[in-house]
Amino acid sequence: MDFSSKLLENAVNEVSQLPGIGKRTALRLVLHLLKQPESQTLRLSQSLQKMREEINFCKNCHNISDTTLCEICANPNRDESLVCVVEDIRDVMAIENTSQYRGQYHVLGGKISPMDGVGPMDLNIPTLVEKAKSGKVSEIIFALSSTMEGDTTNFYIFKQIEGTQVTTTTIARGISVGDELEYADEITLGRSILHRIPFETSLKSS
Amino acid sequence: MDFSSKLLENAVNEVSQLPGIGKRTALRLVLHLLKQPESQTLRLSQSLQKMREEINFCKNCHNISDTTLCEICANPNRDESLVCVVEDIRDVMAIENTSQYRGQYHVLGGKISPMDGVGPMDLNIPTLVEKAKSGKVSEIIFALSSTMEGDTTNFYIFKQIEGTQVTTTTIARGISVGDELEYADEITLGRSILHRIPFETSLKSS
Repeated sequence: MDFSSKLLENAVNEVSQLPGIGKRTALRLVLHLLKQPESQTLRLSQSLQKMREEINFCKNCHNISDTTLCEICANPNRDESLVCVVEDIRDVMAIENTSQYRGQYHVLGGKISPMDGVGPMDLNIPTLVEKAKSGKVSEIIFALSSTMEGDTTNFYIFKQIEGTQVTTTTIARGISVGDELEYADEITLGRSILHRIPFETSLKSS
Repeated sequence: MDFSSKLLENAVNEVSQLPGIGKRTALRLVLHLLKQPESQTLRLSQSLQKMREEINFCKNCHNISDTTLCEICANPNRDESLVCVVEDIRDVMAIENTSQYRGQYHVLGGKISPMDGVGPMDLNIPTLVEKAKSGKVSEIIFALSSTMEGDTTNFYIFKQIEGTQVTTTTIARGISVGDELEYADEITLGRSILHRIPFETSLKSS
């Protein structure tokens, strides 16, 4: 792409560094900003910069937070003996939306993925192991996605906390509510049969 | 969406103001920036701000430019008696890519669209009329998209410069090169038959 202005070219190049945004989309976004009042661009750039510079992570669960301890960890009604291990803050938001969970979280910040150069030390695993050994935690729930990387991460953590009194569980895999059996993949369907639950239990949770 | 941090929420809200970007995509982009070095966010926000504050428009054709006169208008090899009227800078880039045009441009900055509150005075029409009346221009080519708004804009300009010596033309509409006739819409196909050209001419341009 040939740009008539260096300023425009720089802006488009920077915007197109974002995931899923190519040069054409970047140009469209940048030209949109040019048509809007200058204050909008100012607000956008300042909010991004301020966020990047001042963002804080909860010292207990590593969730993004404006305070030292996030709202969930600071809430005395949340059960601190129950810890749900998730990959990132979006998973926390998703689980919070269900209103089914009253424990705390532990945000790993990713999954172990040697292909991408992410090892256990790049993630918030040491603090989780520490938590498990402190004696305050009775159950750790693995809620990572069930991919090769997710399973590896689960297993690594499981090995690290072996020997402690902590029970480890993993979220149920099965047919989504509302889905038809015939379209389900065999692994999911197989697991949902293996890990069947008493019918009375299912009545209570609906 | 419930955010655990006000800083994060502000950033997501600002990013989701961009066209075609919803809250979920905005969150994904913002979390991506958090995983990247702080310098990337700084570069992004500064390039946007610098562009918005310092951007310049060519005083002749209103194209985006870092200099008073854009590269095209400043080029003595470009025919200044030929002016192609386009909606925005992306159209200039598209036509420049064809390497078929050696005249100058006039960027309107939009189309007349009463529904969106865009009148003739919101666009760079007065300077175009002035140009037409200066006697330096022999042909004005309308290259706006052929929508209701584009046609209205063409017609408005046509009426404004009526009586001058300027010839007005419009880019050819027809079947795209490589397209099959049976899938073309009737209006396009009809126009391409009405405005047929001598076969020898088509041989020269391919």
